[in-house]
Amino acid sequence: MKYRRSGRLVDMTNYFLTHPHQQIPLSYFSESYDSAKSSISEDISIIKEVFEYNRLGTIGTTAGASGGVTFIPTVDLTRTESLIDELCYRLEDPERLLPGGYLYMMDVIGDPLLTQDLGRIFASKFRKSKVDAVMTMATKGIPLAYSVAGHLNVPVSIVRHEHRITEGSLVSINYVSGSQKRIQTMSLARRSLAPNSNVLIIDDFMKAGGTIRGMMDLVKEFQSTIAGIGVLTEAVHHEEKLVNEYVSLTKLSEMDIKSKKIKVVRGSIFDNPFYLQD
Amino acid sequence: MKYRRSGRLVDMTNYFLTHPHQQIPLSYFSESYDSAKSSISEDISIIKEVFEYNRLGTIGTTAGASGGVTFIPTVDLTRTESLIDELCYRLEDPERLLPGGYLYMMDVIGDPLLTQDLGRIFASKFRKSKVDAVMTMATKGIPLAYSVAGHLNVPVSIVRHEHRITEGSLVSINYVSGSQKRIQTMSLARRSLAPNSNVLIIDDFMKAGGTIRGMMDLVKEFQSTIAGIGVLTEAVHHEEKLVNEYVSLTKLSEMDIKSKKIKVVRGSIFDNPFYLQD
Repeated sequence: MKYRRSGRLVDMTNYFLTHPHQQIPLSYFSESYDSAKSSISEDISIIKEVFEYNRLGTIGTTAGASGGVTFIPTVDLTRTESLIDELCYRLEDPERLLPGGYLYMMDVIGDPLLTQDLGRIFASKFRKSKVDAVMTMATKGIPLAYSVAGHLNVPVSIVRHEHRITEGSLVSINYVSGSQKRIQTMSLARRSLAPNSNVLIIDDFMKAGGTIRGMMDLVKEFQSTIAGIGVLTEAVHHEEKLVNEYVSLTKLSEMDIKSKKIKVVRGSIFDNPFYLQD
Repeated sequence: MKYRRSGRLVDMTNYFLTHPHQQIPLSYFSESYDSAKSSISEDISIIKEVFEYNRLGTIGTTAGASGGVTFIPTVDLTRTESLIDELCYRLEDPERLLPGGYLYMMDVIGDPLLTQDLGRIFASKFRKSKVDAVMTMATKGIPLAYSVAGHLNVPVSIVRHEHRITEGSLVSINYVSGSQKRIQTMSLARRSLAPNSNVLIIDDFMKAGGTIRGMMDLVKEFQSTIAGIGVLTEAVHHEEKLVNEYVSLTKLSEMDIKSKKIKVVRGSIFDNPFYLQD
């Protein structure tokens, strides 16, 4: 269809936003809109300027016959800090305290648009890490993992505690849950992660880090490497953690069950905010 | 910030796409861009025209002091039929057959952008149904459920087979799995679904319908109603199904384990394609 510039800008903006981390040849747009490549290039400059001004992302250009343009989602640091500060405030509600020292978080994890925003922070942080796949643990890591993977345009591998018969052969490992010191099993379908992948591990919660440590071992079983580790909330843990390099969005720094006092602060991803944005 | 029209179109398009089913006052845009409401109205007309021409969605207007504009995502029927036909073709690969007559589908469910497209079909179908929440069963229904819920801008309630101690009090019911005739338990955290909700049930697979039937009973336990039922794949089942009204994206119409022949066709959502789009 033949659009004027205004129509092309709307349609191309939609196309970029729904095709992140994917190289699009200029000819795709010039043919779709029956427009000269020079007009398309000007359109892209306008979109790129708005995206970069608002820190929604950037549009990279690769020259040559096989070249094209690629939309890379990012986040705005100030807006991200406000989002996380508001989340910390919400998490400090004493009503969230559950027996056993757990924190009710399903309202946060159950909000798909909030999850989209939170996942985009990790996707921005790891946008240059050549991530091939996102790995997470069923059930509560899944929503955040899909958001991160969607913004990076890579598949998700879901690790599970149970053995399910509906996914073919499995790779299983035993691991010791860090806080409870129990031996547990986790499994991943053989087909659900390609060998030699660079894997970003995403989970909702980390205390001692036993589950994450288990996923790291599982990645090795697939002859693959770790691109990074990101968790929504890390909890204070007075013994040494089993995982060293990870980033968190929020940190549960204090939880007193008697006085019902919960303190939640910004996570370690904000220790080097420069890398989050630039 | 003060933008020219082209800049506003890009930024507003992004804003609409990331805030579906949410009423936005015109003053939000006129203040953000320091522009007259008349200019903003013209911008919105351009965006609305492109969205409707491409069947990406529509922009509804509510008049009055508390009025505003609302983006409602839809799908294009022709593109949707191609997407589903291609998916059917992929699902017919004999390599997907697993022992016990199961079909490997994690590559489909594990693809976040495909999942976004599939979920949008249900969101378009049920866009006028006043859905308050999406309910699904862990683990494999979750990705599709989040996509549907994201496009409808409603929360997700995740039902589980296990009892987990980390979500407070649970509502549990027993149900009979339709194909295996086993009595099983499913649970949902009391806090994770508000009473008097209108609930859209989304799952990845349905054979006899026992799991869906269970979720319907669980909805009643929350004094709530069923807005609709959508499944990614329904399987042929020669006895009567336990669920009558549902829509499916694909239908596994034939599966012969000996000859390794699988036949997958368009699901029942295409029986009334008119309602999908208009």
